[in-house]
Amino acid sequence: MSFQNPVFIPGPTNMPEVLRRAVDMPTLDHRSAAFADILHPALKGVKQVVKTKTGEVFIFPSTGSGGWETAISNTLSAGDKVLAARNGMFSKKWIDMCQRHGLEVEVVPVPWGEGIPADRFAEILAADTGHRIKAVLATHNETATGVVSDIAAVRVAMDASDHPALLLVDGVSSIGSMDFRMDEWRVDVAVTGSQKGFMLPAGLAICAFSPKAMAAIKTATLPRWFFDVRDMQVGYAANGYPYTPPVGLLNGLKMACDMLLAEGLENVFARHARIAIGVRKAVVAWGLDLCAVSPDLYSNSVSAIKTPEGFDANKIVTHASTKYGVSYGAGLGEVAGKVFRIGHLGSLTDVMALSGIATVEMCMKDLGLDISLGSGVAAAQEHYRTA
Amino acid sequence: MSFQNPVFIPGPTNMPEVLRRAVDMPTLDHRSAAFADILHPALKGVKQVVKTKTGEVFIFPSTGSGGWETAISNTLSAGDKVLAARNGMFSKKWIDMCQRHGLEVEVVPVPWGEGIPADRFAEILAADTGHRIKAVLATHNETATGVVSDIAAVRVAMDASDHPALLLVDGVSSIGSMDFRMDEWRVDVAVTGSQKGFMLPAGLAICAFSPKAMAAIKTATLPRWFFDVRDMQVGYAANGYPYTPPVGLLNGLKMACDMLLAEGLENVFARHARIAIGVRKAVVAWGLDLCAVSPDLYSNSVSAIKTPEGFDANKIVTHASTKYGVSYGAGLGEVAGKVFRIGHLGSLTDVMALSGIATVEMCMKDLGLDISLGSGVAAAQEHYRTA
Amino acid sequence: MSFQNPVFIPGPTNMPEVLRRAVDMPTLDHRSAAFADILHPALKGVKQVVKTKTGEVFIFPSTGSGGWETAISNTLSAGDKVLAARNGMFSKKWIDMCQRHGLEVEVVPVPWGEGIPADRFAEILAADTGHRIKAVLATHNETATGVVSDIAAVRVAMDASDHPALLLVDGVSSIGSMDFRMDEWRVDVAVTGSQKGFMLPAGLAICAFSPKAMAAIKTATLPRWFFDVRDMQVGYAANGYPYTPPVGLLNGLKMACDMLLAEGLENVFARHARIAIGVRKAVVAWGLDLCAVSPDLYSNSVSAIKTPEGFDANKIVTHASTKYGVSYGAGLGEVAGKVFRIGHLGSLTDVMALSGIATVEMCMKDLGLDISLGSGVAAAQEHYRTA
Amino acid sequence: MSFQNPVFIPGPTNMPEVLRRAVDMPTLDHRSAAFADILHPALKGVKQVVKTKTGEVFIFPSTGSGGWETAISNTLSAGDKVLAARNGMFSKKWIDMCQRHGLEVEVVPVPWGEGIPADRFAEILAADTGHRIKAVLATHNETATGVVSDIAAVRVAMDASDHPALLLVDGVSSIGSMDFRMDEWRVDVAVTGSQKGFMLPAGLAICAFSPKAMAAIKTATLPRWFFDVRDMQVGYAANGYPYTPPVGLLNGLKMACDMLLAEGLENVFARHARIAIGVRKAVVAWGLDLCAVSPDLYSNSVSAIKTPEGFDANKIVTHASTKYGVSYGAGLGEVAGKVFRIGHLGSLTDVMALSGIATVEMCMKDLGLDISLGSGVAAAQEHYRTA
Repeated sequence: MSFQNPVFIPGPTNMPEVLRRAVDMPTLDHRSAAFADILHPALKGVKQVVKTKTGEVFIFPSTGSGGWETAISNTLSAGDKVLAARNGMFSKKWIDMCQRHGLEVEVVPVPWGEGIPADRFAEILAADTGHRIKAVLATHNETATGVVSDIAAVRVAMDASDHPALLLVDGVSSIGSMDFRMDEWRVDVAVTGSQKGFMLPAGLAICAFSPKAMAAIKTATLPRWFFDVRDMQVGYAANGYPYTPPVGLLNGLKMACDMLLAEGLENVFARHARIAIGVRKAVVAWGLDLCAVSPDLYSNSVSAIKTPEGFDANKIVTHASTKYGVSYGAGLGEVAGKVFRIGHLGSLTDVMALSGIATVEMCMKDLGLDISLGSGVAAAQEHYRTA
Repeated sequence: MSFQNPVFIPGPTNMPEVLRRAVDMPTLDHRSAAFADILHPALKGVKQVVKTKTGEVFIFPSTGSGGWETAISNTLSAGDKVLAARNGMFSKKWIDMCQRHGLEVEVVPVPWGEGIPADRFAEILAADTGHRIKAVLATHNETATGVVSDIAAVRVAMDASDHPALLLVDGVSSIGSMDFRMDEWRVDVAVTGSQKGFMLPAGLAICAFSPKAMAAIKTATLPRWFFDVRDMQVGYAANGYPYTPPVGLLNGLKMACDMLLAEGLENVFARHARIAIGVRKAVVAWGLDLCAVSPDLYSNSVSAIKTPEGFDANKIVTHASTKYGVSYGAGLGEVAGKVFRIGHLGSLTDVMALSGIATVEMCMKDLGLDISLGSGVAAAQEHYRTA
Repeated sequence: MSFQNPVFIPGPTNMPEVLRRAVDMPTLDHRSAAFADILHPALKGVKQVVKTKTGEVFIFPSTGSGGWETAISNTLSAGDKVLAARNGMFSKKWIDMCQRHGLEVEVVPVPWGEGIPADRFAEILAADTGHRIKAVLATHNETATGVVSDIAAVRVAMDASDHPALLLVDGVSSIGSMDFRMDEWRVDVAVTGSQKGFMLPAGLAICAFSPKAMAAIKTATLPRWFFDVRDMQVGYAANGYPYTPPVGLLNGLKMACDMLLAEGLENVFARHARIAIGVRKAVVAWGLDLCAVSPDLYSNSVSAIKTPEGFDANKIVTHASTKYGVSYGAGLGEVAGKVFRIGHLGSLTDVMALSGIATVEMCMKDLGLDISLGSGVAAAQEHYRTA
Repeated sequence: MSFQNPVFIPGPTNMPEVLRRAVDMPTLDHRSAAFADILHPALKGVKQVVKTKTGEVFIFPSTGSGGWETAISNTLSAGDKVLAARNGMFSKKWIDMCQRHGLEVEVVPVPWGEGIPADRFAEILAADTGHRIKAVLATHNETATGVVSDIAAVRVAMDASDHPALLLVDGVSSIGSMDFRMDEWRVDVAVTGSQKGFMLPAGLAICAFSPKAMAAIKTATLPRWFFDVRDMQVGYAANGYPYTPPVGLLNGLKMACDMLLAEGLENVFARHARIAIGVRKAVVAWGLDLCAVSPDLYSNSVSAIKTPEGFDANKIVTHASTKYGVSYGAGLGEVAGKVFRIGHLGSLTDVMALSGIATVEMCMKDLGLDISLGSGVAAAQEHYRTA
């Protein structure tokens, strides 16, 4: 890869220079008053980005995966049952984490490329009259397959039987790039990281807890210390942390929220939609298909593109890196070798997207696929210049 | 505080510009081959810094506290008994973490300012003929009191009764600034963070596991996923991570190890000793005492200085920040208000140390203490220029 | 414009991050020995880039224009006659500078888009039997028109009559991106700046003087102090400068030379040729013409592209900046409104070039020109992937 | 030297990180509207810093020396007579520049360490009834000797005989750190650079021209192009430059003015006075003398300190750099080996100053001078904490 070219992996994303500089700050005494001026605006900004008024935000020096662990270890107890669909690499990992923590997971297997089956969830929840299911786990955007699931529909499925389970949502590759309505969807814990929609380096687990999730903390007995929300809450009240905070990343997060809110969240989402549609129009022009099986599932933050039967999709990723110095995402897990991924989340312009489309065209042609050079670019250009 | 002045908190430390730049790198695809060239040198460098040939290093996007959790959750099971001395804020917190994880902690209370009582440990271990104690926890350098404990003596205490417990050591504020001999002392898990001797921003938990600790992983049943050493091990073998790694911080760690090894570890330790002795000579010149009760306990990374009875030591910290823009460490826990701390670990020169000594002199005078201006500086100068 | 997108102005160019960091250094005492380790490698590197063994390099805190003034004021005297072609904005300015310094300029007017007329020069020089012409001025690459002139041919023209005039060459937009053979062409003063082939910010005038030019200094009487090569020579001999040197830029220049030489000069030139040919193939695909009138004049560092009669080329530049956040070069002087320019010098990859081609395609279509989207991109892609 | 320690050379100064970042910006199209938003605030800011309402500011990619050349070449003609005192290295150089430009300089030799002899100037000007003297040159602050001259007194000397000469003032090491009243003193051209009071890297010549100086441009015939104010004026009117501007440095200058004005010019001057007095009190405590012969001449931006007869002052500078990694200024010209200099201009805190005082104390003691360690520090501390 070349640091001059944009990256097209589905996170970490390209980073605006202003955010890199916000992160790269000199040492600031995290026990001084100046730290409060970083911490509280960052917390407030995240609340706005996930659209919650009643939730509380907690930020750990960790990653999105640590955010998952925060979500379950603070709200659940060993032996608790949770419901989850497995429709990609990241939902699969979260299920694994639950199992290692002694939770009983009712797994709904779903073909990779499909979304969360809200109807099936509704059935299972309706049948759970004893309310053994304590939490529903939902991956908003499956980064591995480029599939966005309908969280509002999951909420409807829960409400249909007035099920009291918590709704824990992985918004790692959606929040900040796609609409996320924590309060409206009554999400109980929303989880993300710093390196996607917030356009920062990896290093933060960002969690928002609803009042209901906060109440669940009191009875949850899974062991926790590093990810304990209670200590974090005490710390924040005193403008501090239970341990040394990653001051620079928090400063970056504050600035990232400022950037997103200054552009306007709806404008940010529209930009990502526009760029994503351009990419998808290119895919059509190439005669290829997305991994996502229907348009309602198309993600605006990442496109997983299926290559022809018998062709190793990983070759595109390797070739692009070696010959052109550009990074794309490889297929993971069940779709390894079958798809390559173009990340279009975070900090991206139409102009940058065009170079990503143009380069992958060259790669496919180089590798013998029947691709007409410029075809995908032209389709995207027409969309970008008129949308 | 002012970003122009050095900081004198006991971590995060002043950061060399070359390390800030190593951390602040553009987005690199962490699934590309280039990442291996960051990861493996960083792992190797840490091994050299903690002086282990047989240990394995694992680095988590977290902090030193996450390193503690890694140490216990990967080697112990609920109900296991551990032995620990409580002689400061950080040993206290580690004990609390163990208790929250369902471990039974045999706590040896020690006055703050004293070190780990190796003799008492020897007695307890000798009495534990059933080997219920699975691990001995030792805080090498108590950051809160400026006390360094003798880990070699703890090892001798364990060996005296051939006790098979694991030796888990918190080296957060010692490693990289003071000598740490993992193999020689047969430490089983050594824990540190990025923001002390490695002179980086906070954000990494750095752990080294001995072969014995690696073996313990197989039987340890404390729930873990984010901090699971096994996933990390699998990841490293494939040049990757179980989740998104903090690439920039790892790149900084690689560079930090290069810097420390280029200066020469013994030279680094000698530099910190020289600077620390200068600070201690200043303390003598001021007619004050250290919190550490005897010279063998004096830490070379932080000095906790007792202020006269009836004087609120916190006022020095606040005044220094407000009037002079310089940060010192406040007293924590039992010694809050009784001590202030001068951090002298990480990236520091004699010249910077002199400004820290000079400024605190002015503060003490300003606040009415009977201090002769220039007295501490002169004592330190004489040491710095002749040592 | 957007800082996320590459720039396509013909300098200052896109800057590699490693060069920005080399420039952005902390204050270094320019009277210390450390400065010599920056200065001398920079001087040596420039010599290699301009391919001189016998020349001496002088670097002023200034720009390429200051380099022109250095060239003439150090080698000529008021009333001296010089020969120059006027075939673009920069040759025009240089002529103006000579006139303001009291030199008599024999101007050979040339249509913009054509190169230096070596035959005409030969005639004039042959006719100058009294050798009143003291210097021949040649602009190697006319940035305004994208025309590269044949300096070897100018030398042949001078040699045909054994004319003793000095050969002063403006290599501002060629050196470092296109081949420049100071010794082989017997150039007497070569001039460039930091912000083109050296990929740095503007701020340095970089001049190389042949032994013959050094000899001319002794008799030249044009007043000079800031640009006096003699003081600079004395300074360098003592590892210093006659005034405060721009240390960071010099450090960047040292690093830039290292980068160019590490890539290999011929590889650098080949890369620029490849990128430029791709751009020119796009121009053909669009059905447009270059300002340069014949292929031997096509510049590999900038393409000036003529828009159809009656269309204001400036609208493309404005539109690209406003709508897409991308900067191109406007037409200057005689070709203002008639051409737009794509700069492809300095730090550029094929991938970046494609985004520049794609964006200008959209602009032309947006503005009503009869352009087929993707056509230029496809032509360039085919070249980039096969060249 | 060490990049961790502050520098104590009399420029370039320590640079605030915020200014380094302002300078280190990505490539911005200098022909775009965005450039105007950098240029005009920078020009306006400089006017405020030099306290002129009627002057026009011109900024060249050059240094303070280029500013001198701008001053004389735009206002004078060959053969013109100018009046100047030679009381240090920089006034000496300016005189040399004038002579090389064919000006006749009436030099008033003054012992180094003294200021401009306003009385002698008054006599000479009164005697010049034919007004052959076209300009009076005055060095406001002699960086070599740490002497500030009274420009108001020079103006009085000129007014005494109603002499119409221009008043050209070198404010390189005063402007931005010490009070400079262009309009009140009726200075005709004020000259400075970027690397002193503006706390930036070297690379800008900053000149302010009074209306009278602007009028003189029309008749001045010294050859000029690069430093021609007329082209600059035309450029600014069109939001541009006659050649490629150093955009980053201009952006830094804009930010530097913002910083100075936000702190408040009088507060900035008071800070430098306070720091300078502390240094001078240290000098007294050491039993040494300043080069400046009387208190009214003491500079607040640099102190030149005389060492005892027979002691080579340069040894202090070399020793400080080698042993302690700290840079001080050596003596220049007539006072080489007799003085060393502590620069205290630009970006400096009391805390930083104390480390500079403490370090030089160690150096002097190391080198055998009869210095009491801590004595100078104590004197400065007492001043800093009470002033």
